[in-house]
Amino acid sequence: MASLTKWDRLVRYVSAKDGNIRLGEPIVSDAKPDIDELARKGGLKVKVLEGPTPILAAPTGDEDEVKELLGPLTPKDVSIIRCTGLNYKTHILETGFDLPANPTLFTKPAQAVADTRQPVPIPALGQAQCDYEGELTIVIGKDCKNVSEADALEYVAGYVSSNDVSCRDWQMEKDKAGMMPQWSFSKSFDKYAPLGPCITSTKLLGDGSNLAMKVYVNGELRQDTNTSDLCFGVKKLVSFFSTGQTLVAGSLIMTGTPGGVGFGMKPPKWLKNGDEVVVDIEGIGKVVNTMKFE
Amino acid sequence: MASLTKWDRLVRYVSAKDGNIRLGEPIVSDAKPDIDELARKGGLKVKVLEGPTPILAAPTGDEDEVKELLGPLTPKDVSIIRCTGLNYKTHILETGFDLPANPTLFTKPAQAVADTRQPVPIPALGQAQCDYEGELTIVIGKDCKNVSEADALEYVAGYVSSNDVSCRDWQMEKDKAGMMPQWSFSKSFDKYAPLGPCITSTKLLGDGSNLAMKVYVNGELRQDTNTSDLCFGVKKLVSFFSTGQTLVAGSLIMTGTPGGVGFGMKPPKWLKNGDEVVVDIEGIGKVVNTMKFE
Repeated sequence: MASLTKWDRLVRYVSAKDGNIRLGEPIVSDAKPDIDELARKGGLKVKVLEGPTPILAAPTGDEDEVKELLGPLTPKDVSIIRCTGLNYKTHILETGFDLPANPTLFTKPAQAVADTRQPVPIPALGQAQCDYEGELTIVIGKDCKNVSEADALEYVAGYVSSNDVSCRDWQMEKDKAGMMPQWSFSKSFDKYAPLGPCITSTKLLGDGSNLAMKVYVNGELRQDTNTSDLCFGVKKLVSFFSTGQTLVAGSLIMTGTPGGVGFGMKPPKWLKNGDEVVVDIEGIGKVVNTMKFE
Repeated sequence: MASLTKWDRLVRYVSAKDGNIRLGEPIVSDAKPDIDELARKGGLKVKVLEGPTPILAAPTGDEDEVKELLGPLTPKDVSIIRCTGLNYKTHILETGFDLPANPTLFTKPAQAVADTRQPVPIPALGQAQCDYEGELTIVIGKDCKNVSEADALEYVAGYVSSNDVSCRDWQMEKDKAGMMPQWSFSKSFDKYAPLGPCITSTKLLGDGSNLAMKVYVNGELRQDTNTSDLCFGVKKLVSFFSTGQTLVAGSLIMTGTPGGVGFGMKPPKWLKNGDEVVVDIEGIGKVVNTMKFE
Protein backbone atom coordinates (compact mmCIF):
# COMPACT_ATOMS: atom_id res chain seq x y z
CA MET A 1 0.00 0.00 0.00
CA ALA A 2 0.96 3.64 -0.37
CA SER A 3 2.88 5.13 2.53
CA LEU A 4 2.71 8.52 4.21
CA THR A 5 6.45 8.36 4.86
CA LYS A 6 9.64 8.50 2.79
CA TRP A 7 11.14 5.77 5.03
CA ASP A 8 10.24 2.15 5.82
CA ARG A 9 11.74 2.19 9.32
CA LEU A 10 12.78 5.24 11.32
CA VAL A 11 15.25 5.31 14.21
CA ARG A 12 16.67 8.16 16.28
CA TYR A 13 20.25 7.53 17.32
CA VAL A 14 23.58 8.86 18.53
CA SER A 15 26.05 8.86 15.62
CA ALA A 16 29.21 6.73 15.92
CA LYS A 17 30.91 9.25 13.65
CA ASP A 18 30.40 12.52 15.53
CA GLY A 19 28.18 11.88 18.56
CA ASN A 20 25.31 13.95 17.17
CA ILE A 21 21.70 12.82 17.47
CA ARG A 22 20.02 12.14 14.12
CA LEU A 23 17.13 10.36 12.46
CA GLY A 24 17.90 7.48 10.13
CA GLU A 25 16.62 4.48 8.22
CA PRO A 26 18.47 1.27 9.18
CA ILE A 27 20.15 -0.48 6.25
CA VAL A 28 19.10 -4.08 6.83
CA SER A 29 18.69 -7.21 4.73
CA ASP A 30 16.39 -9.22 7.02
CA ALA A 31 12.64 -8.63 6.54
CA LYS A 32 12.19 -8.70 10.33
CA PRO A 33 15.48 -7.35 11.66
CA ASP A 34 16.32 -7.20 15.38
CA ILE A 35 17.22 -3.48 15.35
CA ASP A 36 18.01 -3.40 19.07
CA GLU A 37 20.44 -6.32 18.76
CA LEU A 38 22.06 -4.94 15.59
CA ALA A 39 22.59 -1.55 17.24
CA ARG A 40 24.13 -3.07 20.38
CA LYS A 41 26.41 -5.40 18.43
CA GLY A 42 27.82 -2.30 16.71
CA GLY A 43 28.20 -1.39 13.07
CA LEU A 44 24.51 -0.77 12.25
CA LYS A 45 24.48 1.51 9.19
CA VAL A 46 21.68 3.96 8.43
CA LYS A 47 20.60 6.29 5.67
CA VAL A 48 20.43 9.71 7.35
CA LEU A 49 16.94 11.28 7.42
CA GLU A 50 16.11 14.94 7.96
CA GLY A 51 12.85 16.86 8.08
CA PRO A 52 10.66 19.21 10.09
CA THR A 53 9.24 16.17 11.95
CA PRO A 54 10.18 12.47 12.04
CA ILE A 55 7.09 11.65 9.97
CA LEU A 56 8.08 14.13 7.26
CA ALA A 57 11.79 13.21 7.35
CA ALA A 58 13.41 12.24 4.04
CA PRO A 59 16.82 10.78 3.05
CA THR A 60 19.63 13.34 2.75
CA GLY A 61 21.76 10.94 0.68
CA ASP A 62 24.29 10.57 3.52
CA GLU A 63 25.06 7.37 5.37
CA ASP A 64 25.99 7.10 9.04
CA GLU A 65 26.60 4.47 11.75
CA VAL A 66 24.68 4.00 15.00
CA LYS A 67 26.56 4.26 18.28
CA GLU A 68 23.47 4.11 20.48
CA LEU A 69 19.78 3.77 19.73
CA LEU A 70 17.31 6.25 21.29
CA GLY A 71 13.51 6.22 20.94
CA PRO A 72 12.16 7.24 17.52
CA LEU A 73 10.07 10.11 18.98
CA THR A 74 10.60 12.74 21.67
CA PRO A 75 7.93 14.52 23.75
CA LYS A 76 8.06 17.50 21.36
CA ASP A 77 7.07 15.23 18.43
CA VAL A 78 4.00 13.85 20.24
CA SER A 79 0.99 16.02 21.08
CA ILE A 80 -0.84 13.43 23.22
CA ILE A 81 -0.98 9.67 23.75
CA ARG A 82 -4.45 8.16 23.56
CA CYS A 83 -4.58 4.78 25.29
CA THR A 84 -7.07 1.97 25.01
CA GLY A 85 -8.42 0.06 28.03
CA LEU A 86 -8.58 -3.76 27.99
CA ASN A 87 -8.59 -4.70 24.31
CA TYR A 88 -7.48 -8.34 23.89
CA LYS A 89 -10.47 -10.66 23.57
CA THR A 90 -8.96 -13.63 25.41
CA HIS A 91 -7.87 -11.45 28.30
CA ILE A 92 -11.20 -9.58 28.57
CA LEU A 93 -13.18 -12.83 28.68
CA GLU A 94 -10.80 -14.49 31.20
CA THR A 95 -11.12 -11.50 33.54
CA GLY A 96 -14.91 -11.97 33.54
CA PHE A 97 -15.92 -8.95 31.45
CA ASP A 98 -18.13 -9.05 28.38
CA LEU A 99 -16.54 -7.74 25.21
CA PRO A 100 -17.11 -3.95 25.26
CA ALA A 101 -19.22 -2.15 22.66
CA ASN A 102 -16.59 0.51 22.08
CA PRO A 103 -12.95 1.20 22.93
CA THR A 104 -12.27 2.81 26.32
CA LEU A 105 -10.06 5.91 26.20
CA PHE A 106 -7.61 7.29 28.71
CA THR A 107 -4.50 9.38 28.03
CA LYS A 108 -0.85 10.00 28.82
CA PRO A 109 0.77 13.40 28.23
CA ALA A 110 3.65 13.90 25.75
CA GLN A 111 6.15 13.96 28.65
CA ALA A 112 5.47 10.24 29.15
CA VAL A 113 7.45 9.51 25.96
CA ALA A 114 10.82 7.88 26.72
CA ASP A 115 13.65 6.31 24.76
CA THR A 116 14.36 2.62 24.54
CA ARG A 117 17.23 1.59 26.85
CA GLN A 118 16.51 4.69 29.02
CA PRO A 119 15.68 3.97 32.69
CA VAL A 120 12.08 4.71 33.65
CA PRO A 121 12.02 6.81 36.86
CA ILE A 122 9.41 5.43 39.27
CA PRO A 123 8.25 8.08 41.78
CA ALA A 124 7.65 7.04 45.40
CA LEU A 125 3.88 6.74 45.02
CA GLY A 126 4.32 4.32 42.07
CA GLN A 127 6.69 1.86 43.73
CA ALA A 128 4.27 -0.35 45.69
CA GLN A 129 2.50 -1.76 42.63
CA CYS A 130 4.62 -0.96 39.57
CA ASP A 131 3.53 -2.93 36.51
CA TYR A 132 4.22 -3.31 32.76
CA GLU A 133 1.90 -3.54 29.75
CA GLY A 134 3.30 -4.47 26.36
CA GLU A 135 1.40 -2.64 23.62
CA LEU A 136 1.42 -2.03 19.88
CA THR A 137 1.35 1.75 19.42
CA ILE A 138 -0.06 3.51 16.36
CA VAL A 139 1.74 6.64 15.08
CA ILE A 140 -0.72 9.08 13.45
CA GLY A 141 0.91 10.47 10.29
CA LYS A 142 -1.51 13.14 9.19
CA ASP A 143 -4.18 15.22 10.94
CA CYS A 144 -7.56 13.52 10.70
CA LYS A 145 -11.11 13.77 12.05
CA ASN A 146 -14.24 11.64 11.54
CA VAL A 147 -12.29 9.04 9.57
CA SER A 148 -14.07 5.89 8.40
CA GLU A 149 -12.52 2.50 9.11
CA ALA A 150 -12.06 2.08 5.36
CA ASP A 151 -9.90 5.22 5.15
CA ALA A 152 -8.13 4.93 8.53
CA LEU A 153 -4.79 3.58 7.28
CA GLU A 154 -4.30 6.65 5.07
CA TYR A 155 -3.58 8.55 8.29
CA VAL A 156 -1.29 6.01 9.99
CA ALA A 157 2.46 6.53 9.53
CA GLY A 158 3.41 3.28 11.24
CA TYR A 159 3.82 1.38 14.48
CA VAL A 160 6.19 1.26 17.45
CA SER A 161 6.67 -1.16 20.35
CA SER A 162 5.77 0.37 23.71
CA ASN A 163 5.34 -0.24 27.41
CA ASP A 164 2.32 1.31 29.16
CA VAL A 165 4.04 1.52 32.57
CA SER A 166 1.34 1.55 35.26
CA CYS A 167 0.88 2.13 38.96
CA ARG A 168 -1.91 -0.30 39.88
CA ASP A 169 -2.91 0.80 43.36
CA TRP A 170 -3.63 4.32 42.11
CA GLN A 171 -5.26 2.94 38.97
CA MET A 172 -7.64 0.60 40.77
CA GLU A 173 -8.42 1.80 44.27
CA LYS A 174 -11.19 4.34 44.52
CA ASP A 175 -10.53 5.06 48.19
CA LYS A 176 -7.00 6.12 47.39
CA ALA A 177 -7.91 7.75 44.13
CA GLY A 178 -10.95 9.80 44.88
CA MET A 179 -14.21 9.51 42.93
CA MET A 180 -13.23 6.78 40.49
CA PRO A 181 -10.32 4.65 39.25
CA GLN A 182 -7.47 6.94 38.19
CA TRP A 183 -6.41 5.43 34.86
CA SER A 184 -4.87 8.64 33.50
CA PHE A 185 -3.15 9.77 36.72
CA SER A 186 -1.63 6.36 37.45
CA LYS A 187 -0.05 5.99 34.00
CA SER A 188 1.01 9.58 33.23
CA PHE A 189 4.27 9.98 35.10
CA ASP A 190 7.28 11.24 33.13
CA LYS A 191 8.74 8.53 30.87
CA TYR A 192 5.89 6.06 31.57
CA ALA A 193 5.58 5.37 27.80
CA PRO A 194 8.92 4.11 26.47
CA LEU A 195 8.96 3.67 22.67
CA GLY A 196 11.30 1.71 20.44
CA PRO A 197 13.31 0.55 18.70
CA CYS A 198 11.96 2.12 15.47
CA ILE A 199 8.75 3.18 13.80
CA THR A 200 7.96 0.56 11.16
CA SER A 201 5.87 2.06 8.39
CA THR A 202 2.33 1.10 7.45
CA LYS A 203 3.74 0.17 4.03
CA LEU A 204 5.50 -2.77 5.72
CA LEU A 205 2.92 -3.68 8.39
CA GLY A 206 -0.45 -2.79 6.82
CA ASP A 207 -3.20 -2.72 9.45
CA GLY A 208 -0.99 -4.41 12.07
CA SER A 209 -3.56 -7.16 12.56
CA ASN A 210 -1.30 -10.23 12.67
CA LEU A 211 1.79 -9.41 14.72
CA ALA A 212 3.19 -11.61 17.48
CA MET A 213 3.96 -9.74 20.74
CA LYS A 214 6.09 -11.10 23.58
CA VAL A 215 6.92 -9.33 26.83
CA TYR A 216 9.77 -10.41 29.10
CA VAL A 217 10.63 -9.32 32.66
CA ASN A 218 14.26 -10.06 33.50
CA GLY A 219 14.21 -12.59 30.66
CA GLU A 220 11.04 -14.40 31.83
CA LEU A 221 8.24 -14.56 29.24
CA ARG A 222 5.16 -12.88 30.77
CA GLN A 223 2.93 -11.78 27.88
CA ASP A 224 2.64 -13.83 24.67
CA THR A 225 -0.05 -12.92 22.19
CA ASN A 226 -0.84 -11.83 18.64
CA THR A 227 -2.58 -8.62 17.58
CA SER A 228 -5.10 -10.84 15.77
CA ASP A 229 -6.72 -11.20 19.22
CA LEU A 230 -7.41 -7.45 19.46
CA CYS A 231 -11.06 -6.71 20.13
CA PHE A 232 -10.75 -3.33 18.35
CA GLY A 233 -8.07 -3.26 15.67
CA VAL A 234 -6.08 -0.36 14.28
CA LYS A 235 -8.70 0.81 11.78
CA LYS A 236 -11.49 0.80 14.38
CA LEU A 237 -9.38 2.64 16.97
CA VAL A 238 -8.36 5.41 14.55
CA SER A 239 -11.93 5.75 13.30
CA PHE A 240 -13.55 5.73 16.76
CA PHE A 241 -11.08 8.06 18.50
CA SER A 242 -11.31 10.52 15.58
CA THR A 243 -15.06 10.93 16.07
CA GLY A 244 -15.61 14.65 16.62
CA GLN A 245 -11.95 15.18 17.51
CA THR A 246 -8.85 15.83 15.45
CA LEU A 247 -6.06 13.28 15.79
CA VAL A 248 -2.95 15.37 15.18
CA ALA A 249 0.05 14.10 13.17
CA GLY A 250 2.59 12.72 15.63
CA SER A 251 0.01 11.82 18.25
CA LEU A 252 -0.05 8.20 19.36
CA ILE A 253 -2.67 5.55 20.06
CA MET A 254 -1.66 2.72 22.39
CA THR A 255 -3.82 -0.29 21.53
CA GLY A 256 -4.17 -2.01 24.92
CA THR A 257 -2.47 -4.97 26.58
CA PRO A 258 -3.21 -8.71 26.77
CA GLY A 259 -3.13 -11.01 29.82
CA GLY A 260 0.09 -11.72 31.67
CA VAL A 261 0.63 -8.44 33.50
CA GLY A 262 2.03 -8.64 37.05
CA PHE A 263 -1.32 -7.50 38.50
CA GLY A 264 -3.07 -10.62 37.19
CA MET A 265 -0.69 -13.15 38.74
CA LYS A 266 -1.52 -15.01 41.94
CA PRO A 267 0.07 -13.55 43.95
CA PRO A 268 0.76 -10.41 41.90
CA LYS A 269 4.37 -9.91 40.77
CA TRP A 270 5.23 -6.21 40.95
CA LEU A 271 8.24 -4.68 39.19
CA LYS A 272 11.17 -3.94 41.48
CA ASN A 273 13.98 -1.42 41.22
CA GLY A 274 16.32 -2.46 38.40
CA ASP A 275 13.91 -4.89 36.72
CA GLU A 276 14.23 -4.98 32.94
CA VAL A 277 11.14 -5.09 30.72
CA VAL A 278 11.36 -6.04 27.03
CA VAL A 279 8.37 -5.60 24.70
CA ASP A 280 9.09 -7.35 21.38
CA ILE A 281 6.62 -6.98 18.50
CA GLU A 282 7.02 -8.84 15.19
CA GLY A 283 8.26 -6.58 12.39
CA ILE A 284 9.08 -3.73 14.79
CA GLY A 285 11.42 -5.15 17.42
CA LYS A 286 12.22 -4.59 21.06
CA VAL A 287 11.77 -1.66 23.41
CA VAL A 288 13.93 -2.35 26.47
CA ASN A 289 13.84 -0.42 29.75
CA THR A 290 14.83 -0.87 33.37
CA MET A 291 12.78 0.54 36.23
CA LYS A 292 14.62 3.07 38.40
CA PHE A 293 12.96 3.67 41.78
CA GLU A 294 13.56 7.26 42.84
CA MET B 1 2.94 38.75 45.03
CA ALA B 2 5.54 38.44 42.26
CA SER B 3 4.21 37.55 38.85
CA LEU B 4 5.54 35.25 36.16
CA THR B 5 4.10 37.55 33.50
CA LYS B 6 4.78 41.02 32.17
CA TRP B 7 1.01 41.62 31.92
CA ASP B 8 -1.86 41.71 34.41
CA ARG B 9 -4.51 40.59 31.93
CA LEU B 10 -3.92 39.07 28.50
CA VAL B 11 -6.38 39.02 25.61
CA ARG B 12 -6.06 37.77 22.03
CA TYR B 13 -8.06 39.89 19.61
CA VAL B 14 -8.72 41.05 16.08
CA SER B 15 -7.39 44.59 15.66
CA ALA B 16 -9.86 47.35 14.77
CA LYS B 17 -6.99 49.14 13.02
CA ASP B 18 -5.79 46.51 10.54
CA GLY B 19 -7.70 43.25 11.13
CA ASN B 20 -4.62 41.40 12.35
CA ILE B 21 -4.75 39.04 15.31
CA ARG B 22 -2.62 40.16 18.26
CA LEU B 23 -2.09 39.73 21.99
CA GLY B 24 -2.78 42.68 24.23
CA GLU B 25 -3.35 43.97 27.73
CA PRO B 26 -6.70 45.74 28.10
CA ILE B 27 -6.42 49.36 29.31
CA VAL B 28 -9.12 49.46 31.98
CA SER B 29 -9.85 51.51 35.07
CA ASP B 30 -12.25 49.14 36.88
CA ALA B 31 -10.59 46.58 39.20
CA LYS B 32 -13.03 43.95 37.95
CA PRO B 33 -13.75 45.00 34.35
CA ASP B 34 -16.31 43.23 32.13
CA ILE B 35 -13.86 42.65 29.26
CA ASP B 36 -16.45 40.88 27.10
CA GLU B 37 -18.91 43.77 27.43
CA LEU B 38 -16.21 46.43 26.85
CA ALA B 39 -15.04 44.65 23.69
CA ARG B 40 -18.54 44.30 22.30
CA LYS B 41 -19.47 47.90 23.05
CA GLY B 42 -16.48 48.94 20.93
CA GLY B 43 -13.50 51.15 21.66
CA LEU B 44 -11.62 48.83 24.07
CA LYS B 45 -7.98 49.93 23.95
CA VAL B 46 -5.07 47.60 24.63
CA LYS B 47 -1.33 47.76 25.06
CA VAL B 48 0.04 45.46 22.35
CA LEU B 49 1.95 42.41 23.66
CA GLU B 50 4.39 40.26 21.72
CA GLY B 51 6.44 37.21 22.63
CA PRO B 52 7.31 33.62 21.78
CA THR B 53 4.28 32.49 23.81
CA PRO B 54 1.36 34.34 25.44
CA ILE B 55 2.89 33.71 28.88
CA LEU B 56 6.21 35.27 27.83
CA ALA B 57 4.61 38.16 25.91
CA ALA B 58 5.71 41.68 26.84
CA PRO B 59 4.51 45.18 25.92
CA THR B 60 5.83 46.51 22.59
CA GLY B 61 4.99 50.10 23.53
CA ASP B 62 2.24 50.26 20.88
CA GLU B 63 -1.45 50.74 21.56
CA ASP B 64 -4.29 49.21 19.57
CA GLU B 65 -8.08 48.86 19.63
CA VAL B 66 -10.10 45.63 19.83
CA LYS B 67 -12.55 44.86 17.04
CA GLU B 68 -13.35 41.35 18.26
CA LEU B 69 -12.21 39.32 21.24
CA LEU B 70 -10.88 35.78 20.68
CA GLY B 71 -9.75 33.30 23.35
CA PRO B 72 -6.44 34.12 25.08
CA LEU B 73 -4.87 30.78 24.06
CA THR B 74 -4.90 28.61 20.93
CA PRO B 75 -4.37 24.83 20.71
CA LYS B 76 -0.71 25.39 19.82
CA ASP B 77 -0.14 27.27 23.10
CA VAL B 78 -1.57 24.42 25.21
CA SER B 79 0.13 21.04 25.52
CA ILE B 80 -2.68 19.29 27.41
CA ILE B 81 -5.66 20.13 29.61
CA ARG B 82 -5.77 18.28 32.94
CA CYS B 83 -9.29 18.26 34.36
CA THR B 84 -10.51 17.60 37.88
CA GLY B 85 -13.53 15.42 38.66
CA LEU B 86 -16.16 16.61 41.15
CA ASN B 87 -14.40 19.20 43.31
CA TYR B 88 -16.98 21.47 45.00
CA LYS B 89 -17.70 20.32 48.54
CA THR B 90 -21.39 21.24 48.60
CA HIS B 91 -22.01 19.49 45.31
CA ILE B 92 -20.06 16.34 46.25
CA LEU B 93 -21.97 15.96 49.51
CA GLU B 94 -25.37 16.65 47.90
CA THR B 95 -24.73 13.95 45.27
CA GLY B 96 -24.15 11.42 48.08
CA PHE B 97 -20.37 10.99 47.76
CA ASP B 98 -17.89 11.34 50.59
CA LEU B 99 -15.24 14.03 50.08
CA PRO B 100 -12.46 12.32 48.08
CA ALA B 101 -8.94 11.85 49.46
CA ASN B 102 -7.30 13.17 46.30
CA PRO B 103 -8.25 15.00 43.12
CA THR B 104 -9.50 12.83 40.25
CA LEU B 105 -7.76 13.42 36.91
CA PHE B 106 -9.03 13.15 33.36
CA THR B 107 -7.85 15.06 30.31
CA LYS B 108 -8.80 16.97 27.18
CA PRO B 109 -6.39 17.34 24.24
CA ALA B 110 -5.10 20.74 23.07
CA GLN B 111 -7.57 20.70 20.18
CA ALA B 112 -10.39 21.17 22.71
CA VAL B 113 -9.27 24.79 23.19
CA ALA B 114 -11.75 27.27 21.65
CA ASP B 115 -12.25 31.01 21.58
CA THR B 116 -14.90 32.89 23.50
CA ARG B 117 -17.85 33.83 21.25
CA GLN B 118 -16.90 30.96 18.90
CA PRO B 119 -19.65 28.34 18.33
CA VAL B 120 -18.85 24.91 19.84
CA PRO B 121 -19.49 22.20 17.22
CA ILE B 122 -21.43 19.31 18.77
CA PRO B 123 -20.93 16.04 16.85
CA ALA B 124 -23.91 13.72 16.33
CA LEU B 125 -22.95 11.39 19.20
CA GLY B 126 -22.84 14.34 21.63
CA GLN B 127 -26.26 15.81 20.89
CA ALA B 128 -28.54 13.63 23.04
CA GLN B 129 -27.09 14.73 26.39
CA CYS B 130 -25.02 17.86 25.76
CA ASP B 131 -24.13 19.66 29.01
CA TYR B 132 -22.09 22.59 30.38
CA GLU B 133 -19.71 22.88 33.33
CA GLY B 134 -18.47 26.30 34.41
CA GLU B 135 -14.90 26.03 35.71
CA LEU B 136 -12.01 28.15 36.90
CA THR B 137 -9.00 27.12 34.79
CA ILE B 138 -5.38 27.42 35.94
CA VAL B 139 -2.75 28.45 33.35
CA ILE B 140 0.65 26.88 34.16
CA GLY B 141 3.34 29.54 33.55
CA LYS B 142 6.56 27.60 33.97
CA ASP B 143 7.54 23.91 33.72
CA CYS B 144 7.29 22.23 37.11
CA LYS B 145 7.43 18.79 38.73
CA ASN B 146 6.99 17.60 42.35
CA VAL B 147 5.98 21.07 43.50
CA SER B 148 4.96 21.62 47.11
CA GLU B 149 1.69 23.40 47.87
CA ALA B 150 3.77 26.20 49.42
CA ASP B 151 5.62 26.80 46.13
CA ALA B 152 2.76 26.06 43.73
CA LEU B 153 1.81 29.66 42.88
CA GLU B 154 5.32 30.36 41.59
CA TYR B 155 4.38 28.23 38.57
CA VAL B 156 0.91 29.66 37.90
CA ALA B 157 0.67 32.44 35.28
CA GLY B 158 -2.99 33.13 35.94
CA TYR B 159 -6.59 32.05 35.48
CA VAL B 160 -9.21 31.94 32.74
CA SER B 161 -12.96 31.29 32.69
CA SER B 162 -13.87 28.05 30.91
CA ASN B 163 -16.66 25.67 30.01
CA ASP B 164 -15.98 21.93 30.30
CA VAL B 165 -18.50 20.96 27.60
CA SER B 166 -19.59 17.37 28.23
CA CYS B 167 -21.53 14.57 26.61
CA ARG B 168 -23.18 12.83 29.56
CA ASP B 169 -24.45 9.58 28.06
CA TRP B 170 -20.94 8.67 26.91
CA GLN B 171 -19.48 9.92 30.16
CA MET B 172 -21.76 7.90 32.42
CA GLU B 173 -23.04 4.77 30.70
CA LYS B 174 -20.71 1.81 30.86
CA ASP B 175 -22.76 -0.24 28.38
CA LYS B 176 -22.32 2.41 25.72
CA ALA B 177 -18.80 3.28 26.74
CA GLY B 178 -17.07 -0.03 27.17
CA MET B 179 -15.25 -1.07 30.32
CA MET B 180 -15.85 2.03 32.40
CA PRO B 181 -17.26 5.56 32.31
CA GLN B 182 -15.59 7.49 29.49
CA TRP B 183 -14.71 10.82 31.13
CA SER B 184 -11.91 11.68 28.69
CA PHE B 185 -13.65 10.53 25.49
CA SER B 186 -16.92 12.30 26.29
CA LYS B 187 -15.27 15.67 26.94
CA SER B 188 -12.48 15.70 24.34
CA PHE B 189 -14.22 16.72 21.14
CA ASP B 190 -12.75 19.65 19.19
CA LYS B 191 -13.52 22.99 20.87
CA TYR B 192 -15.05 21.37 23.99
CA ALA B 193 -12.98 23.71 26.21
CA PRO B 194 -13.81 27.33 25.35
CA LEU B 195 -11.62 29.85 27.20
CA GLY B 196 -12.11 33.55 27.80
CA PRO B 197 -12.27 36.47 27.93
CA CYS B 198 -8.69 36.96 29.22
CA ILE B 199 -6.05 35.36 31.40
CA THR B 200 -5.98 37.31 34.67
CA SER B 201 -2.56 37.03 36.29
CA THR B 202 -1.78 35.44 39.63
CA LYS B 203 -0.53 38.85 40.70
CA LEU B 204 -4.15 40.06 40.66
CA LEU B 205 -5.95 36.89 41.79
CA GLY B 206 -3.47 35.16 44.14
CA ASP B 207 -4.49 31.55 44.79
CA GLY B 208 -7.95 32.08 43.26
CA SER B 209 -9.60 30.87 46.45
CA ASN B 210 -12.40 33.43 46.81
CA LEU B 211 -13.93 34.08 43.40
CA ALA B 212 -17.66 34.10 42.66
CA MET B 213 -18.66 32.00 39.62
CA LYS B 214 -22.00 32.21 37.85
CA VAL B 215 -23.11 30.19 34.82
CA TYR B 216 -26.06 31.17 32.64
CA VAL B 217 -27.84 29.21 29.89
CA ASN B 218 -29.80 31.51 27.58
CA GLY B 219 -29.72 34.08 30.38
CA GLU B 220 -31.03 31.73 33.10
CA LEU B 221 -28.74 31.38 36.16
CA ARG B 222 -27.82 27.70 36.52
CA GLN B 223 -24.59 27.54 38.55
CA ASP B 224 -23.85 30.00 41.36
CA THR B 225 -20.90 29.32 43.62
CA ASN B 226 -17.60 30.59 44.96
CA THR B 227 -14.20 28.95 44.59
CA SER B 228 -13.97 29.03 48.41
CA ASP B 229 -16.12 25.87 48.24
CA LEU B 230 -13.45 23.96 46.26
CA CYS B 231 -12.48 20.71 47.94
CA PHE B 232 -8.97 20.90 46.40
CA GLY B 233 -7.80 24.45 45.73
CA VAL B 234 -5.31 25.75 43.19
CA LYS B 235 -2.19 25.03 45.28
CA LYS B 236 -3.23 21.45 46.02
CA LEU B 237 -4.16 20.73 42.39
CA VAL B 238 -0.83 22.01 41.03
CA SER B 239 1.10 20.13 43.71
CA PHE B 240 -0.81 16.84 43.33
CA PHE B 241 -0.90 16.74 39.52
CA SER B 242 2.83 17.57 39.38
CA THR B 243 3.71 14.46 41.40
CA GLY B 244 6.12 12.48 39.22
CA GLN B 245 5.02 14.35 36.10
CA THR B 246 6.10 17.61 34.52
CA LEU B 247 3.39 20.23 34.10
CA VAL B 248 4.52 22.11 31.01
CA ALA B 249 4.24 25.90 30.66
CA GLY B 250 1.01 26.66 28.79
CA SER B 251 -0.74 23.51 29.96
CA LEU B 252 -4.04 23.99 31.77
CA ILE B 253 -5.75 22.59 34.84
CA MET B 254 -9.54 22.82 34.94
CA THR B 255 -10.58 22.82 38.58
CA GLY B 256 -13.96 21.05 38.45
CA THR B 257 -17.57 22.23 38.45
CA PRO B 258 -20.17 22.85 41.16
CA GLY B 259 -23.83 21.78 41.25
CA GLY B 260 -26.34 23.14 38.77
CA VAL B 261 -25.36 21.29 35.61
CA GLY B 262 -28.17 20.15 33.30
CA PHE B 263 -27.54 16.51 34.19
CA GLY B 264 -28.46 17.10 37.84
CA MET B 265 -31.86 18.69 37.17
CA LYS B 266 -35.10 16.75 37.52
CA PRO B 267 -35.76 16.14 34.71
CA PRO B 268 -32.32 16.85 33.16
CA LYS B 269 -32.11 19.95 30.94
CA TRP B 270 -29.79 19.21 28.02
CA LEU B 271 -28.28 21.91 25.84
CA LYS B 272 -29.98 22.33 22.47
CA ASN B 273 -28.69 23.64 19.15
CA GLY B 274 -28.14 27.39 19.44
CA ASP B 275 -28.16 27.53 23.25
CA GLU B 276 -25.81 30.14 24.71
CA VAL B 277 -23.68 29.35 27.78
CA VAL B 278 -21.97 32.11 29.78
CA VAL B 279 -19.39 31.29 32.46
CA ASP B 280 -18.63 34.44 34.48
CA ILE B 281 -15.87 34.35 37.11
CA GLU B 282 -15.10 37.30 39.39
CA GLY B 283 -11.93 39.16 38.36
CA ILE B 284 -11.69 37.30 35.03
CA GLY B 285 -15.00 37.80 33.24
CA LYS B 286 -17.22 35.93 30.82
CA VAL B 287 -16.57 33.18 28.32
CA VAL B 288 -19.60 33.06 26.02
CA ASN B 289 -20.36 30.30 23.50
CA THR B 290 -23.32 28.92 21.58
CA MET B 291 -23.71 25.22 20.85
CA LYS B 292 -23.80 24.33 17.16
CA PHE B 293 -25.20 20.87 16.45
CA GLU B 294 -23.48 19.44 13.35
